[in-house]
Amino acid sequence: MTTLPGSCPGVVAHSSGNHAQAVARAAKVLGLPAVIVMPENAPALKRERTAADGARVVTVGNDSEERKTKALQIARDEGLQMVPPYDHPLIAAGQGTCAVELIEDLRVRGVTLDRFYAPISGGGLMAGCATAVAALSPTTQIIGVEPTDGDDTRQSLASGQRIAVAPPQTIADGLRVRTPGELTWPVIQRYVHRIETVGDQEMLEAMAWALFRLRVVVEPSGAASLAVALREGAGNHGVVLSGGNVATATLCMALEAGRSPQSKTV
Amino acid sequence: MTTLPGSCPGVVAHSSGNHAQAVARAAKVLGLPAVIVMPENAPALKRERTAADGARVVTVGNDSEERKTKALQIARDEGLQMVPPYDHPLIAAGQGTCAVELIEDLRVRGVTLDRFYAPISGGGLMAGCATAVAALSPTTQIIGVEPTDGDDTRQSLASGQRIAVAPPQTIADGLRVRTPGELTWPVIQRYVHRIETVGDQEMLEAMAWALFRLRVVVEPSGAASLAVALREGAGNHGVVLSGGNVATATLCMALEAGRSPQSKTV
Repeated sequence: MTTLPGSCPGVVAHSSGNHAQAVARAAKVLGLPAVIVMPENAPALKRERTAADGARVVTVGNDSEERKTKALQIARDEGLQMVPPYDHPLIAAGQGTCAVELIEDLRVRGVTLDRFYAPISGGGLMAGCATAVAALSPTTQIIGVEPTDGDDTRQSLASGQRIAVAPPQTIADGLRVRTPGELTWPVIQRYVHRIETVGDQEMLEAMAWALFRLRVVVEPSGAASLAVALREGAGNHGVVLSGGNVATATLCMALEAGRSPQSKTV
Repeated sequence: MTTLPGSCPGVVAHSSGNHAQAVARAAKVLGLPAVIVMPENAPALKRERTAADGARVVTVGNDSEERKTKALQIARDEGLQMVPPYDHPLIAAGQGTCAVELIEDLRVRGVTLDRFYAPISGGGLMAGCATAVAALSPTTQIIGVEPTDGDDTRQSLASGQRIAVAPPQTIADGLRVRTPGELTWPVIQRYVHRIETVGDQEMLEAMAWALFRLRVVVEPSGAASLAVALREGAGNHGVVLSGGNVATATLCMALEAGRSPQSKTV
């Protein structure tokens, strides 16, 4: 495990968008330079917001392995501290604090979770959350959610080893990682009870549901676990809505999906 | 001042939509029948949500005085308790609790408000909020916001007496009341420092700003005070976003407004 030294000359990260913005903002707060490696197909909004916090944005191709390689090279060449998007114990632990807060808030109200849903991409969010849920709420069923064409964790759990899938084309740009993280994988294997997959249309319908019922804007990746929770029905369920950085065109698609007769929004 | 008796046989209210839903929900929780008088031009969504909580919805014309008359008649004919949308001390006090909570939350963080913005329709929300702000945060400037064609409070303050305007056509369906309330008017006259008006396009742009910056869905009425706060610039300002019941078509208009080059959303 590495930690940021007091004399850290700056940070570098690779991300499709949300980790990018988090690192850029943290670096700005700490007064450190930041370089963020992002894919060409990241939403323009995420690139703009990352740059708006003063980070230098480096654009590479759309493969998650390609941007990891580029970020490692920049870290080596420029002597910067790498802040990985998921495959690091402190990153996973930090992302898991949302589950700790959720369980503590519910405990005050005397509520125990029946199920806990979170999306899985590289698995940092789920590894952290699942560790917290298993420790603090051991009767809760833990459900990971992946896009239909990015079900590497589902396939990995079925076969007992890490499987890589082809680059996913899902609308959920935050869930396009092709294989479970090295460090997150054994944690997920240990604590996650099952994986469910979700397609683009169902994510868009869940976005519309969140807009009209929760009055909250979530991006497709952020609506993935909500979509599965809605499919599986009522109960005391915790759902992580991870990400609200969505382009106008995608929001319009969600509104269109919310109009369809199959929709849960009316 | 009237209070709900223990033997209350049911409630009746008149409202363009948000008070309707609040009364319907409260009646459901208390196990009381509820009748809500709504205008023909209330958004379908607001009517549906009111009915979904078990209230009987009675539709009349679009004038706020007409629905008040109808509600009073139903109260008399059916022996129901009237719950007015704004012109009652307990209603105004209840609506003002949002300002109390805001100021208390900020006090913990050592922040004092420079300005406080809330919309004015009948004036219950503002009468309650202004009373709270004046008492708890006396250095804060209190600014009321009205639609351009529903500026009855602005005209009333200028002339020193309650003025009625023609039925407003503004997109802000929650702000179409034509004259200040009898009881709210002297409170507003005493505590509100100034009134600003806002047009439909600026409300739609503020809705887009809330969608993309706050990730929150607000209706045009709810975006009115945000629009003025954005126009007047940075500072420690409190803004009441009152209402998130918005039809798909109006959300699409806001997204379109957010695309315009004059927009503050990019």
